[in-house]
Amino acid sequence: MSVLTATYQVYGKPGSFEKKAEGIALGLTIGSWTDLPLLEQEQLKHHKGNVVSIEEFEQDLHPLKPDLIKAELEIAYPSINFSADLPAILTTVFGKLSLDGEVKLLDLDFSHDLLSHFPGPRFGIEEIRNTLGVRGRPLLMSIFKGVIGRDLDFLSTQLREQALGGVDLVKDDEILFDNPLTPFESRITTGKRVLDDVYEKTGHRTLYAVNLSGRTSELREKARKARELGADALLFNVHAYGLDVLQELAEDDDIALPLMAHPAFSGAFTSSAFYGLATPLALGKLIRYAGADFSLFPSPYGSVALEKTAALALGKELTMDSPLKRSFPVPSAGIHPGLVPLLMADYGIDCVINAGGGVHGHPAGAAGGGQAFRQAIDAVLQGETLQDAGKQHKELQTALELWG
Amino acid sequence: MSVLTATYQVYGKPGSFEKKAEGIALGLTIGSWTDLPLLEQEQLKHHKGNVVSIEEFEQDLHPLKPDLIKAELEIAYPSINFSADLPAILTTVFGKLSLDGEVKLLDLDFSHDLLSHFPGPRFGIEEIRNTLGVRGRPLLMSIFKGVIGRDLDFLSTQLREQALGGVDLVKDDEILFDNPLTPFESRITTGKRVLDDVYEKTGHRTLYAVNLSGRTSELREKARKARELGADALLFNVHAYGLDVLQELAEDDDIALPLMAHPAFSGAFTSSAFYGLATPLALGKLIRYAGADFSLFPSPYGSVALEKTAALALGKELTMDSPLKRSFPVPSAGIHPGLVPLLMADYGIDCVINAGGGVHGHPAGAAGGGQAFRQAIDAVLQGETLQDAGKQHKELQTALELWG
Repeated sequence: MSVLTATYQVYGKPGSFEKKAEGIALGLTIGSWTDLPLLEQEQLKHHKGNVVSIEEFEQDLHPLKPDLIKAELEIAYPSINFSADLPAILTTVFGKLSLDGEVKLLDLDFSHDLLSHFPGPRFGIEEIRNTLGVRGRPLLMSIFKGVIGRDLDFLSTQLREQALGGVDLVKDDEILFDNPLTPFESRITTGKRVLDDVYEKTGHRTLYAVNLSGRTSELREKARKARELGADALLFNVHAYGLDVLQELAEDDDIALPLMAHPAFSGAFTSSAFYGLATPLALGKLIRYAGADFSLFPSPYGSVALEKTAALALGKELTMDSPLKRSFPVPSAGIHPGLVPLLMADYGIDCVINAGGGVHGHPAGAAGGGQAFRQAIDAVLQGETLQDAGKQHKELQTALELWG
Repeated sequence: MSVLTATYQVYGKPGSFEKKAEGIALGLTIGSWTDLPLLEQEQLKHHKGNVVSIEEFEQDLHPLKPDLIKAELEIAYPSINFSADLPAILTTVFGKLSLDGEVKLLDLDFSHDLLSHFPGPRFGIEEIRNTLGVRGRPLLMSIFKGVIGRDLDFLSTQLREQALGGVDLVKDDEILFDNPLTPFESRITTGKRVLDDVYEKTGHRTLYAVNLSGRTSELREKARKARELGADALLFNVHAYGLDVLQELAEDDDIALPLMAHPAFSGAFTSSAFYGLATPLALGKLIRYAGADFSLFPSPYGSVALEKTAALALGKELTMDSPLKRSFPVPSAGIHPGLVPLLMADYGIDCVINAGGGVHGHPAGAAGGGQAFRQAIDAVLQGETLQDAGKQHKELQTALELWG
């Protein structure tokens, strides 16, 4: 039988969890069971939610209510109960339940035929690498900086500088929306001109992810237009819209552009230790299922940091074996060249090293900042220490002096 | 100047908040200020976020970190920075910031011209009352119960029973999606037949809110079809989709049906005291701005309870003076007839009294359950105690004996 298995973290008194789990399994499916006539039980048994496991963590006391311990409950929901879309799935497994006290949705396990309704990334890691012609190393991305209120010339200059540093990708600032100074379509065409020019002069290809924004029903048409205009990729604030909106963008053959999911707003439902969704589920598994080729998330290194276990589990969700293609993990925030060895130890080569201040803040400008990162990546691949590599490469040396 | 003012709750050391607030105001707008040349400052000043106020609550210590106190920061964002849609607004004021430690978005204040981009409810309290012909009392709503895996006959019988109890509205179970046993369109046509029949026989009109579900891009067509088929109202799991999706349903003149926003999934981002959105903002103001005629939320009375101050503030957001029409507050969960005096004291007559178990669990069935609620409402309006009214009305008496 096709099922969706949800894992929840709850708190309660030791021994109280069986009743709680049964209550969830029934409450979110057929409502009641033991008081039903046998004939109705027979009729409804394929719709009934079932408790799969209950694990109590006796040592994990609630920080504010020490008579409560943590438990994880696994509950299987027959997929016959819902349509195979994420809004129906989230409503079933965490609709009413999200309002029912301290309960956190840790994971969802889709049975194989349920998963077949989800596209996953259209391109995935391999095809993005094909497009860029980059293999054997992490990709490098940088971010526009301070572009609100600026014009196309300002953006062009900044884009050129970044591309000259050898970054593979540049993404829009996620708070840059359609505006008279730098309209969506002009950003695409201007960006394309700049990046084509850099390619002609240097042989280095940089892709630009433009921020797809506006009203929900206009996104697909806008994205198709972006493709027509030669856009390389789309940045998308998926959590301000909805996962299903991302999925529809990914499924649209007339769009067919790499999609980069931004984590904006996701902290609202992932940050609490007691409520909401676990980050590896929200920014990892579900983002991959919904079809993003890249998922940005707070790195475990910077000041805006994700806890390391979660940040690694998130990367794993994006890249582990699955019928779906793999998405690039993009650990972001607080990244400077000195962190590259750690980043590559944690995420391997199949990730995107993404820096804002660590590129723009370089004393030699964004071009120097990008170069310092590329030098750091090369050093790690060649088994050199950054200190040694810095002796050969002045951009890296400067970065190490500045950021350590 | 058109601005959007956000109020945040944060924790920090006393005296640390000015820097924090300035960091937010700049970080979510132009990025930097003091190090900009004067000419650029002049150019960017209309785009700069500004700290409006900082209020420290010295007595409100962080429960786990007692060296930190609570503060509320008000920050004004020029609306020139974003397009006038909720995804852009949420991304601006709580995009990256939602991931930046313990920060909760308490409120958003839209300047008048920004608000003009939001439709609010198409019908609102007055027009819903016109449709029903019900004035001077709260509306009464009941909910289908245990309908997963059941057929249309089962739903019809349950709908008829509920309507016979004198309820004004019946809503679908929010976890009932399109399914072969009770497809969306058949629910509408069958429901209409049942309710027309009850109206002919009793003169009482009940509206049925059918659950609009499925893929995002199909919702509008499905809703238009629902209208063609004579649907009364649409239930919508807005938080599993996105606020802008609700707004587009509300704005569509070809749909033009009352919209009932369900709070499913909203607990993920409203339940924490430290993260996410305040409930009155999420389920009150934004739901009204996005155009729902009804907003369901956890009542402050039941087991799945919302804290009373928040539940009352939420009701106020839905009904306070504004250029937009008023939405019906629908405090839900744990409601039985004995609570009607309290409900009406808290929410007045402009609310919907919504019960599941409190209707279906009545010993005389859902019809008796509905009658008991109507009797309780009448008693409160006439200044009678429920105890006295129970002496005249056996359904109410039975309910009081059962639930107190």
